[in-house]
Amino acid sequence: MREVAVIGCGMTKFGELWDKSLRDIFVEAALQAIDDAQVDKIDSMYVGAMTPGLFVGQEHIGALMADYLGVAPIPALRVESACCSGGMAVRMGFLDIASGNSDVVLCGGVEKMTDGADVTYALATAADQEYEVYHGVTFPGLYAMIANAHMHRYGTTREQLAAVSVKNHHNGSLNPKAQFQSEITIENVIKAALVADPLTVLDSSPVSDGAACVILASMDIAKRLQKPCVKIIGTGAATDSLALDKREDITTLRAVKVAAESAYGMARVKPTDVSLAEVHDCFSIAEICIIEELGFVEKGKGGPFTEQGHTALSGKIPVNPSGGLKSKGHPVGATGVAQVVEVVDQLRGDAGKRQVKSAKIGLAQNMGGSGASSVVHIFSI
Amino acid sequence: MREVAVIGCGMTKFGELWDKSLRDIFVEAALQAIDDAQVDKIDSMYVGAMTPGLFVGQEHIGALMADYLGVAPIPALRVESACCSGGMAVRMGFLDIASGNSDVVLCGGVEKMTDGADVTYALATAADQEYEVYHGVTFPGLYAMIANAHMHRYGTTREQLAAVSVKNHHNGSLNPKAQFQSEITIENVIKAALVADPLTVLDSSPVSDGAACVILASMDIAKRLQKPCVKIIGTGAATDSLALDKREDITTLRAVKVAAESAYGMARVKPTDVSLAEVHDCFSIAEICIIEELGFVEKGKGGPFTEQGHTALSGKIPVNPSGGLKSKGHPVGATGVAQVVEVVDQLRGDAGKRQVKSAKIGLAQNMGGSGASSVVHIFSI
Repeated sequence: MREVAVIGCGMTKFGELWDKSLRDIFVEAALQAIDDAQVDKIDSMYVGAMTPGLFVGQEHIGALMADYLGVAPIPALRVESACCSGGMAVRMGFLDIASGNSDVVLCGGVEKMTDGADVTYALATAADQEYEVYHGVTFPGLYAMIANAHMHRYGTTREQLAAVSVKNHHNGSLNPKAQFQSEITIENVIKAALVADPLTVLDSSPVSDGAACVILASMDIAKRLQKPCVKIIGTGAATDSLALDKREDITTLRAVKVAAESAYGMARVKPTDVSLAEVHDCFSIAEICIIEELGFVEKGKGGPFTEQGHTALSGKIPVNPSGGLKSKGHPVGATGVAQVVEVVDQLRGDAGKRQVKSAKIGLAQNMGGSGASSVVHIFSI
Repeated sequence: MREVAVIGCGMTKFGELWDKSLRDIFVEAALQAIDDAQVDKIDSMYVGAMTPGLFVGQEHIGALMADYLGVAPIPALRVESACCSGGMAVRMGFLDIASGNSDVVLCGGVEKMTDGADVTYALATAADQEYEVYHGVTFPGLYAMIANAHMHRYGTTREQLAAVSVKNHHNGSLNPKAQFQSEITIENVIKAALVADPLTVLDSSPVSDGAACVILASMDIAKRLQKPCVKIIGTGAATDSLALDKREDITTLRAVKVAAESAYGMARVKPTDVSLAEVHDCFSIAEICIIEELGFVEKGKGGPFTEQGHTALSGKIPVNPSGGLKSKGHPVGATGVAQVVEVVDQLRGDAGKRQVKSAKIGLAQNMGGSGASSVVHIFSI
């Protein structure tokens, strides 16, 4: 298997981008990544998107984006795994180069969610239609069940959930591309409009437009470039049942655990070796469960660990230095690629006011649905 | 790059499968393929589907199918490239094994189109929404424009278009899994209801439900099995503009041509070496353009070549021995994988009444939209 590195990154601001179309924002991010990588050819392209068909009536966006970017007739296709479509696109690019089929690959993610579609319905297509959605479940409802179970079993408190959002908004206030660049307090979160008990609107990631792209290359090409070389040292992906009722324990995200084990194994690193992590905080409870599955803290202790500041920018293991999905925004297909952009910026030392000190190894964890699929990548400088 | 073989195949009957759901039909095809391959483990899974979100309100089907098949937590994701989603899923499985990441991969395709969705709208999401669909174009309309241009430029006749459907219905009448197992005549095609001038309903592939799966494995695993070993000797994929108005010549399918050149190059074979081909005859004119791009006949001569019987089962180069999309049916995401199933059946000598004699090298060509993406695979026994 050939070694693979990230040689270029680009992303749009995340938010309500009403003056730009789906193709506009993808091409904006892709051109930034190409400029950053300083490459003059791309061999193939993978585009992560959850449901552009339901959001804006456009499928077939692999070919569409290749054409609008001016790189057709190269091979291009879309990868979908609900909200971890972007991370899966990066994984496909990795395998394409590892196989020797391509030398330089563009992996991107994009979603345009604010153009008038029924967003709650569209997102619910990531849950089990036959066993969950037809019976009235929404995504906030599913995560609220996980939150209640975690609080009941481990004593996680309402304040500890809120601490995730407060930390991520602080980090996002330092990120010029974040959708929300404002600080919030524990009280703000708890007193915000209830979405699904106990989760309020400030426990929940927003509806967003945005795109992010990275350029991957074989290590021999990457080494010729005169800039810090960020290597992908591990990739892991896994699945679980879509429906929560089929899981033995809904506080355990098995797909995250298995994907992380694969990635740690390939990278030959331990959780304690990781300098920083971008994780899939679609709801505050998700970040708490994920840092447990990733092995940053013992199962059930994610709440106190967060409340004590260990996941803050200056903590033991900074989590979501970008602001995470909560503050940076969550254009679902773009999120997994944007996580990689942040990890690469951090490892290169280009993260400005939110720079994590001495960052050597970074991890990106992306997740689909209520945890039915997950992909984990580990990077080193 | 490791060598890759197909070691198992399965598919449902194609048609209106109202008593089975999306997940039912996928699992039916997958279990057949697993039984055929006689494997007891699968390392990862790729599922091709065009738009299950619009057809049945379900995205995230990589994880869903892995769970229902009982193989979770293995990595599983969906691949989308409109009507060539299935072929692209096979390509991803090939690259996954070629890289050394997986040894045994399940590649499947599925679509459930007859459950009440607005099929014309859903299929049109494969065209350019901003430059074509908003202005009233449908898929039959796009292919009708190509047909008119081909007739005008090359003198292709109405009867020659019809000859494609007549041949494919004859082949389909020999295929127990085909949606339509009845012969038709030139007169039937020409006098059928007009869809978009000059194309009638009998120039057009039907709306279908169905699934198809193949198991791929590294060559060293394949060789241990005591049955004919079908090797993937070439893969190629390419893209073009979604919108027809952006192409220099709408009778040329550039993505097909470029994908075929890549596949022929990797396989080190010429068009004249191919024993049989499954191609993407979504409309009769498509098969005529495709056999030209694949190099089976000179550009512009596809009509007479078909009319003279050279693409019939006993012709120079049998095309669509399965009955093709026209007669076998076209559950869009499943089609590309079903093509591979037919080629493997033919190379193994298992194609029954429609067996092509002395089949040694087979080609499968799958296409998305009005030709904006295409993937070509070449197989040898």
